[in-house]
Amino acid sequence: MLNISTEHKKEHLYLEVYHYYRKLIMEERLLPGSKMPSLRKCAQELKLSRTTIENAYLQLAADGYIIARAQSGYYVTDIATKQHPVILEKHSENMVPCLYDFASSGVDRESFRFDLWQRYIKSALRQDNRMLSYGEPQGEKDLREVLSDYIRERRNVICSPDDIVVGAGLQSLLQILCPLIRERKTVSFPTPSFIQGSTIFEDYGFDVHYRDKNCDVIYVSPAHMTKWGEIMPVKRRLELIHHAEANNHLIIEDDFENEFVYLQKPTPSLFGLAGGENVVYIGSFSRLLLPSIRVSFMVLPSSLRELYAPKASFYNQTASKAEQIALCQFIRDGHLVSQTRKLRRLYAQKLKSLSCAVREVFGTDCQIKTGAAGTSLALTIPCTVNGKTLKEAARAEGMRLEILKETSSDITLVLSCSSIPVKDFLPACQLLKNISDNCCSFSASSDILS
Amino acid sequence: MLNISTEHKKEHLYLEVYHYYRKLIMEERLLPGSKMPSLRKCAQELKLSRTTIENAYLQLAADGYIIARAQSGYYVTDIATKQHPVILEKHSENMVPCLYDFASSGVDRESFRFDLWQRYIKSALRQDNRMLSYGEPQGEKDLREVLSDYIRERRNVICSPDDIVVGAGLQSLLQILCPLIRERKTVSFPTPSFIQGSTIFEDYGFDVHYRDKNCDVIYVSPAHMTKWGEIMPVKRRLELIHHAEANNHLIIEDDFENEFVYLQKPTPSLFGLAGGENVVYIGSFSRLLLPSIRVSFMVLPSSLRELYAPKASFYNQTASKAEQIALCQFIRDGHLVSQTRKLRRLYAQKLKSLSCAVREVFGTDCQIKTGAAGTSLALTIPCTVNGKTLKEAARAEGMRLEILKETSSDITLVLSCSSIPVKDFLPACQLLKNISDNCCSFSASSDILS
Repeated sequence: MLNISTEHKKEHLYLEVYHYYRKLIMEERLLPGSKMPSLRKCAQELKLSRTTIENAYLQLAADGYIIARAQSGYYVTDIATKQHPVILEKHSENMVPCLYDFASSGVDRESFRFDLWQRYIKSALRQDNRMLSYGEPQGEKDLREVLSDYIRERRNVICSPDDIVVGAGLQSLLQILCPLIRERKTVSFPTPSFIQGSTIFEDYGFDVHYRDKNCDVIYVSPAHMTKWGEIMPVKRRLELIHHAEANNHLIIEDDFENEFVYLQKPTPSLFGLAGGENVVYIGSFSRLLLPSIRVSFMVLPSSLRELYAPKASFYNQTASKAEQIALCQFIRDGHLVSQTRKLRRLYAQKLKSLSCAVREVFGTDCQIKTGAAGTSLALTIPCTVNGKTLKEAARAEGMRLEILKETSSDITLVLSCSSIPVKDFLPACQLLKNISDNCCSFSASSDILS
Repeated sequence: MLNISTEHKKEHLYLEVYHYYRKLIMEERLLPGSKMPSLRKCAQELKLSRTTIENAYLQLAADGYIIARAQSGYYVTDIATKQHPVILEKHSENMVPCLYDFASSGVDRESFRFDLWQRYIKSALRQDNRMLSYGEPQGEKDLREVLSDYIRERRNVICSPDDIVVGAGLQSLLQILCPLIRERKTVSFPTPSFIQGSTIFEDYGFDVHYRDKNCDVIYVSPAHMTKWGEIMPVKRRLELIHHAEANNHLIIEDDFENEFVYLQKPTPSLFGLAGGENVVYIGSFSRLLLPSIRVSFMVLPSSLRELYAPKASFYNQTASKAEQIALCQFIRDGHLVSQTRKLRRLYAQKLKSLSCAVREVFGTDCQIKTGAAGTSLALTIPCTVNGKTLKEAARAEGMRLEILKETSSDITLVLSCSSIPVKDFLPACQLLKNISDNCCSFSASSDILS
């Protein structure tokens, strides 16, 4: 027990030094550009070992407070003088910070337990043996075992871990799948808006169609039929399966946002309904955990599994091994199930609040569309300017918008509730109304002038 | 200052509880399958808060010591009764643990500072804002800035961060590149052994040739011309560039293992020599840091950059955002440079020791080939069985081998020094000799019998 305590004491000490200097730097008592005392000098003054000081300095550097210059020493960065950005912008040229992100596909800030995830990542990184070698091409075996249990229980997808291929996001999986099904020529997507999917098929020479049930490959997201969360009824699911079976079409079932079906019981997966034939099942965790965690997976039916097996080792694994190991343990310990439960409750409640806020601002008879799932609603507002103009005007006021449809007299927006806190719904809607009113009155007045 | 100390104290406490139970479990004083005390009870007994106990339990679960069962509580796993595996096997059906991995493409166990890397990952995970959103499709901007500085200084590759595309490994990059150059039809690789590269080109419909300078695309690794580390002389580099320029061929320069050029000064990059035209430069960190870190990048020449820009947002980023953020700061703080220096020194010395061990066991006139770079040497031994038989015999004795070439009378092996500690070189070579002697004498005796 003594050893452990000494170890703790040491950890304690280096953190003390770390916090001491961090405070000096953030309070600008150590100015940007100034040199940190040398390790030797600092150790002497504080009567601590050089290792302790070095550990503290390394942590300060890792966190961006100081920076090392070769053969010279450590220097204070300008971190204290920089404002903390509200939300990091996709387009860095756009300098207005985004206050209200209605176009977000991120997750609710309060929903994710960073501390918990950090613990699992830390634990994964401690497994030196595994981190020193390349990952299994198909994905870490223990993760595939856990996934196979998970989808059997939750989605009635019955498969062996060997049928599962892990990859860093949907596209990495499609890039393995497309070469396996190259004798097929055409693919159908539900809408032209899913460019990430259609691009990959186009890259492999497929002809891309939309809502065409006579294509060789049918790509569907049954829990995300529209941006405002409509889901595919069971009857339609069965029709699709029978049609595909009769015509030897392959269905790709992207189970995106299936976890966020609120208004009814989760509908059965196509893979399960079809008995595991003719359907490729795809799942991911971006909307459940963090968008920055890049782990997705697909389940191959036996016919494709046979084509994949001899080629499996030709493809290197793209997903981070540390994240795979962490995710495996995270699911095994039940955190994914509880996180899903929590998010479903949270988003159902947020969507309701957002509807209320929209009606309060735009009137009770405004055109709102909501579905049985998802994190967004569709709102149609009268608007005489085009979508691009409205979007840019909003962006200049710190709001991001996604345009779904526009006519000469109105615009339909998709408003996502995921990244905006409930308390901001009302001011955000008010701002949106002001922006659209201003745009249209300006456009009306310039019509008169011209 | 008071706040910080209290915070520390709390952290201290939960770790105390963690270490206390870990010890009990590892010493089998708490047996596998036994139930842990409830949070409430444990908190009462230890006179600590429930949160402290919960933190300790969560960490124990994350590290695999206990497991949660819904509506029941925590149970001790069988971690104490399991032996720690020596090296995790690629093929789990192969049950003999691997003692000497001559076929490894991993890194030296002692060379990587896990503690340092953990710190950078922890720091990245603390950046909530960035972790809550999707990564930039092209790769995190700050990482691309750091990479552009790094390769300018070290490889004379002059480019803007906008010319750099980040991806999870070489294949993810080629899957973006291939569609951009689809009007080209043929690609040349140096050897048929690089299946990871040729597979992707085949998937996109290219004809794959070998050592054919009349192909539309020429793929080369100038610092890794052969498995035993031959590098491309500068004269040959210039010839290649002129030939490609004259015939409008595109060169893909995979700068693999350029960091491990020992016997001469690092040779200039093709990208630099060609003035940034007609060459795609590809770099990665798997051999420098950890194979499990999946971050690679490519530099596009201006003509391809123009084709890529409008499509950039169609491809989601595959590399882990946390690892990108960590790597950025890691390079900025100079750790990549020092790690490279350290590895170069280490591998040069290890390769020398391995040569000595081979000569000591196989005789001073045995056929060894070494190059100016890399982590492997080629050894030709007389052998009357085929490569597959030798490889399997070795595997059964806990040794992994890579066969480079075989004739009816001898076999050429590639022996990698990276994963085997220096002290094991002599016993490993001795074991190799015994295995090959046994194989051949057995084959000779069965020849007589037949």
